[in-house]
Amino acid sequence: MTNERSNATIPSGPRFAIGVDYGTSSARALVVDITNGTEVGAATWAYAHGRDGVVLDEREPDLARQHPADYVEGFRRAVGDAVRDAMRSPGFAPERVVGIGVDTTGSTPIPVDHAGTALALTERFADDPAAMAWLWKDHTAHAEAAEITERIRAAGLPYLETCGGVYSSEWYWSKILHCERRAPEVAAAAASWVELCDFVPALVTGTALPERIARSVCAAGHKAMYHPRWGGLPSASFLDGLKPGLARLREGYATPALTADRAAGGLLPAWGEAVGLPAGVPVAVGAFDAHMGAVGAGIREGTLVKIMGTSTCDCMVAPLESRASPMASPLLIPGVCGIVPGSVLPGMLGIEAGQSAVGDIFDWYVSRIARDHGSSAAERHASLSAEAARLVPGASGLLALDWHNGNRTVLVDPRLSGLLLGQSLHTTHAEIYRALIEATAFGALTIIERIESCGVPVRDIVACGGLAERNPLLMQIYADICGRPIAVSRSAQTCALGAAIFGSVAGGGHPDVASAQRAMAGVRAERYAPDPQRHATYRRLFALYRALHDSFGLPDCAAPLGHVMKELLAIRDAARQQPRTQPRSAP
Amino acid sequence: MTNERSNATIPSGPRFAIGVDYGTSSARALVVDITNGTEVGAATWAYAHGRDGVVLDEREPDLARQHPADYVEGFRRAVGDAVRDAMRSPGFAPERVVGIGVDTTGSTPIPVDHAGTALALTERFADDPAAMAWLWKDHTAHAEAAEITERIRAAGLPYLETCGGVYSSEWYWSKILHCERRAPEVAAAAASWVELCDFVPALVTGTALPERIARSVCAAGHKAMYHPRWGGLPSASFLDGLKPGLARLREGYATPALTADRAAGGLLPAWGEAVGLPAGVPVAVGAFDAHMGAVGAGIREGTLVKIMGTSTCDCMVAPLESRASPMASPLLIPGVCGIVPGSVLPGMLGIEAGQSAVGDIFDWYVSRIARDHGSSAAERHASLSAEAARLVPGASGLLALDWHNGNRTVLVDPRLSGLLLGQSLHTTHAEIYRALIEATAFGALTIIERIESCGVPVRDIVACGGLAERNPLLMQIYADICGRPIAVSRSAQTCALGAAIFGSVAGGGHPDVASAQRAMAGVRAERYAPDPQRHATYRRLFALYRALHDSFGLPDCAAPLGHVMKELLAIRDAARQQPRTQPRSAP
Repeated sequence: MTNERSNATIPSGPRFAIGVDYGTSSARALVVDITNGTEVGAATWAYAHGRDGVVLDEREPDLARQHPADYVEGFRRAVGDAVRDAMRSPGFAPERVVGIGVDTTGSTPIPVDHAGTALALTERFADDPAAMAWLWKDHTAHAEAAEITERIRAAGLPYLETCGGVYSSEWYWSKILHCERRAPEVAAAAASWVELCDFVPALVTGTALPERIARSVCAAGHKAMYHPRWGGLPSASFLDGLKPGLARLREGYATPALTADRAAGGLLPAWGEAVGLPAGVPVAVGAFDAHMGAVGAGIREGTLVKIMGTSTCDCMVAPLESRASPMASPLLIPGVCGIVPGSVLPGMLGIEAGQSAVGDIFDWYVSRIARDHGSSAAERHASLSAEAARLVPGASGLLALDWHNGNRTVLVDPRLSGLLLGQSLHTTHAEIYRALIEATAFGALTIIERIESCGVPVRDIVACGGLAERNPLLMQIYADICGRPIAVSRSAQTCALGAAIFGSVAGGGHPDVASAQRAMAGVRAERYAPDPQRHATYRRLFALYRALHDSFGLPDCAAPLGHVMKELLAIRDAARQQPRTQPRSAP
Repeated sequence: MTNERSNATIPSGPRFAIGVDYGTSSARALVVDITNGTEVGAATWAYAHGRDGVVLDEREPDLARQHPADYVEGFRRAVGDAVRDAMRSPGFAPERVVGIGVDTTGSTPIPVDHAGTALALTERFADDPAAMAWLWKDHTAHAEAAEITERIRAAGLPYLETCGGVYSSEWYWSKILHCERRAPEVAAAAASWVELCDFVPALVTGTALPERIARSVCAAGHKAMYHPRWGGLPSASFLDGLKPGLARLREGYATPALTADRAAGGLLPAWGEAVGLPAGVPVAVGAFDAHMGAVGAGIREGTLVKIMGTSTCDCMVAPLESRASPMASPLLIPGVCGIVPGSVLPGMLGIEAGQSAVGDIFDWYVSRIARDHGSSAAERHASLSAEAARLVPGASGLLALDWHNGNRTVLVDPRLSGLLLGQSLHTTHAEIYRALIEATAFGALTIIERIESCGVPVRDIVACGGLAERNPLLMQIYADICGRPIAVSRSAQTCALGAAIFGSVAGGGHPDVASAQRAMAGVRAERYAPDPQRHATYRRLFALYRALHDSFGLPDCAAPLGHVMKELLAIRDAARQQPRTQPRSAP
C-alpha cells in the first residue's frame, strides 16, 4: 500500500478530511475541517437498485441484497457532490484534503473474482441476487449460522468466545456457506468474499486483488471469527469441515487485518478525476458504520455510543491492559456481537452489540399499519409522536417485544418475531407506537445490563443517527427506561464524521484517533435526563418485558406468565390516576 | 298474569307472532308468519344515548351502561314500525298476532324502585350511570366477581356448579355488589334489580311490581345463581355476607323463575295503541338473545348454535333425563357460563358459553387501526376480508389471542387482554385481520373441546348473527379451524325469530317450542365444509394458541414457550411453499 502523495504537498492553512458512509439505503459523504469539526460539504446519493436500495424476494422474506453497482456509483456521486458542495466554502480546496475514510454497513460480504471484481459487476452474474452484496440484514443463512455455532461448540473451539457465544445468520461465514449450498455456481466463481467496508477502499485505490486487499480488523474480528489468539481466521480444517473446499477462502485473505487509522492506499487518478480530488489522497482502511460512528460521537471508556437508525448498534470500549493480554484472558460477554482488539479505537477492546430493527419497526408501523396518520411517513411519525408524547408510561396497558427482525443481542437469534400484548377494544395507534418505542428501549436496557454484568460499567450514553437527531420523544423514553443521561452527538452525520476522523489520521492530519476526536467530535449541550417517577414505572414494565423476553427467547425457560396481563392492567390503572404529562419539546 | 284476550278471538287464516330483540346498539322487531316462518315485517331502532347506544366513561374503560329510556322508546319504535311494515303484506292484520316474545342482552340488570320503575327514569337519577342498565359488557365489577367466587369456594357452597365454577364480572350479583359499594345512594333506592329481559315484558304488560314481576329462568339461572337445587337464589345469609342488607333483594324476586314459553301478561291498552296492536296480546316471559337465537336457529341435541356478533354466545342443549334429575346429578363443565334446566328449551338442560368480544375485535381493528382501508367501516371490512381471503393459513407467521375484552369461556377472566405475536417488518393489515379472525375461531374451538370433554358431543354447528350472515371468509375459517361443518340460520334476525317462536307458543299459536321450531326455523341450503389441508395447518397453530392460552390465562402454568415463534416461522415457511388459495365467494 503506497500513498502516492505525501502530506508535505498540502498547502498551509485549513485542512480537511472526507468521510464516506455507506448506509442501508444511500451513500453519503462529508467534508470536515480537521481542526474544529466544521462540516463544509455534504452529499447523499440514494441507491438505484431494489426497494430503497435493497433487493428483496417476496417468496423469501429473509433475503436482503444490494447491487455493488450502487456502491461504485455511490462513491462517485456522494464524494463528487460533497466536494462540489465544499467548494462553496471559502477555505476549502481539493488540495487541502488530507485523507478519506470509509464506513459501511456490515457484515455485508460481496463475492469477487480473481481480479477482485464483484461478481455482480460481471456480465454472467449481473442479475443474480446470490452474486450481489449480502446485506447485513439478510437472514437467509439462519440454518447455516446454527450449524456453525453447533460445530464450534461440539468441537470445543474458541472461535465464538469473542462474538458472544452464538454465530449469527447476519455474518460472513453463514452467508458464504448458504451461498455454497444454494447458489453453487456463484460460490464456485468467488475467489474471495470481501466485506463492503474493504471493497470500497480497494476499489478507489486499485488494491482489490484478493490476496492483497486490506481487511478491516473491525469486520474480520466481529464477523469472520478473526482473532490473533488463534492466528487469524478459523482453521482450514474447520472451514473444510463446514464444506470441503471452503478453506481456499483463507488463501485470498491477507493478514493481519488492519485498524482504520492505517491507509489502504492512495486514490487512483481516475477516481480522483471522477470526484474532483487530487490523485493519491490517502484512503483509510474501512470499518463498520457503527464503529466509526462511535468514534465520531466521542466514544471513551464508560460511555455507550448508540448509533440509532433502521437498526441500532451499540459500541463500547474497554482497556486491553486490565485483562493482561487479549491473547490470554479475553473479556467474554455472552450474546454480545463482538469483542475485538482495535475494532473501534486502536489499542482498545472494541465491544459491539445491537438490535436488528429499531427505526425499521417504526417505519414498518407508519408505512404498513398507521397509514391514516398523514400522507407521508414523516407526517405520520410526527403525528404519532405528538400523540404518544401525551401518554403516561404504562397507561396504555401495552407491552411489546422488539423482535420484528429477530434479536441480535443478547439472544443472537434471527428466528424470533414481534409481539404486542395488552390490546383492548380501545387501543390506539399512538399507544401502539409508543409501546414499540418502549420495546426497543427495553431491548437497549437488556443489552446494557448484560454488558454491565460482565464488568464493563455503562455510565452514560451518547446517541447519534437519525432517531437521535429527530425524535426527542424516543430519546426521553430511552433515558427514562435506561435510567441514564443521554447526550446526542453534535454532528448529524456522526458515522461519516467518524470516517473523516480516520481519514484524517490515516492521511497524517492528526497523530492519533484521540487527538482527532478532541478536535473534530462533540455532543450537543442539552442532554436527556431520566425522570425518576417514569423510571420507576418502567422498571415494573421492564420486569414484564424480561419475563416475555426469556420465555419466548430462551429454549428452555418455563417461567409462569399468568401474572403478565394482570400486572399490566394494574400498572395501567395506576398510571391513569396520574396527571397527564405535557409533550416534551425538543431540547 | 292474565291474558285479556283469548286465542278464540283471532280470525281464521294466517297468524303471526312478533319477536322483539334488544341488542347492544338497537332494538329490532320482526313479524313472522307462524305457519312457515315467513318474515312479513321488520324494523330497527338505534338507541339514542351514549356512543352507539352505550354510555361510556373515558376514565373507566370497563364501564358500559345503557339508558332505560332507550328500551322504552325502542319497543314503541321497533314494534310500531314493524307492524306498519307488515301492514303492507296482504295476509297480515294486527288482529292476527297471537303473541309477542322478547329477547335481550344480558346479564343487563337495571335498578328499579318500589313501583318497578327504572331509577334512571326518575328525575333524581336520570343522568347517573349507576342508575342505568349495567350492560352485559360492563366489567367494572371484576373485584366483586372475584370476591363472590372466593366466598363461595371458601364456604363450600354449590352456587357455581352450574355456571362454570367462576362467577363473572358481567353478572347480576357482581354488578349489584359493585353498585352497593361505589354508588350507595343508587343501591339504597333500588327496591330490586331487574334483568332487561324481564324489564321489557313487565313494562308493556303492566306487571313491573318487583314482588310480582316474572323472572326469566334463563337470566336467573345463568346469571343470578338461581337453581331449584338450592331453592332458588343464594341464601339470605350468603347475600348478607357479601354486604349486610343485600338479602332484601330476595324478597322482591318472585319465584319460581319461568321459561319463555309462558306468558308474562297481556299487552297494556296504551302500549297496544302505541304500536298498533290490540290490547291483551300475550307477551312471553323474556330470555337472553343468544338463547332465543339458538331456538330460532333450530337448536337440538348435538348441534352447537353460535350467535356471532360483537361478542359470541354458544348454546347447546342436553337431555335432563340422562342425568337422572337435575336436582341430583348436575352436568358440570368448568369455565362454561351456565348449565340451567329450561334456559334454552323447556325440558332440556341449556348450556351457555361464549366469547367476550368477536365482532368487537374486528370493529376495533377497522375503526382504530386499519383506517386507511376505505372510508367506512363496511368498506374496510370488505377490503381487508378480500385481501385476507387470498392468504394461506399460517403464511403470515402471526398468531393472536382474542382477549381484547377479557375471556368469558373457559377462563372466565375479564382481566385479560389481547396479544399478537409473529410480526415481521412486512406484516400487513390483512394478515393481522386474518390472524384476529383465526384467534376468535381458536377461542371457539377451545370452548367446543371443553364442552366435549365433559361428555356433550358437538356434531355440527349452526351459526347466526351478523358475522355469520355477512362474512363468508370468517365462516370458512371457523369451519376449517373447528373441523366441523357449519350451517347458517336462514333468518337474518335469528334472535328475533326465536323470540317470535316463544311469542307464538306463549300465545297458543303452537303447542310447544319444538313444533314452532319445525314450522318457523331453518338453515340455508349451503354449508361451510372444513378443508382437510387447512384444518391440518390450523391444528398446528391451535397447539400454539393453546400454549399461549394456558400460559397467559392460567395462574400457575409454567410451560416453555421458546418453541412458539420458531414453530410459527416453520409453519409460515411451509405455507409459503403452497399455492395460494382463491378467494372464496359467498355460498
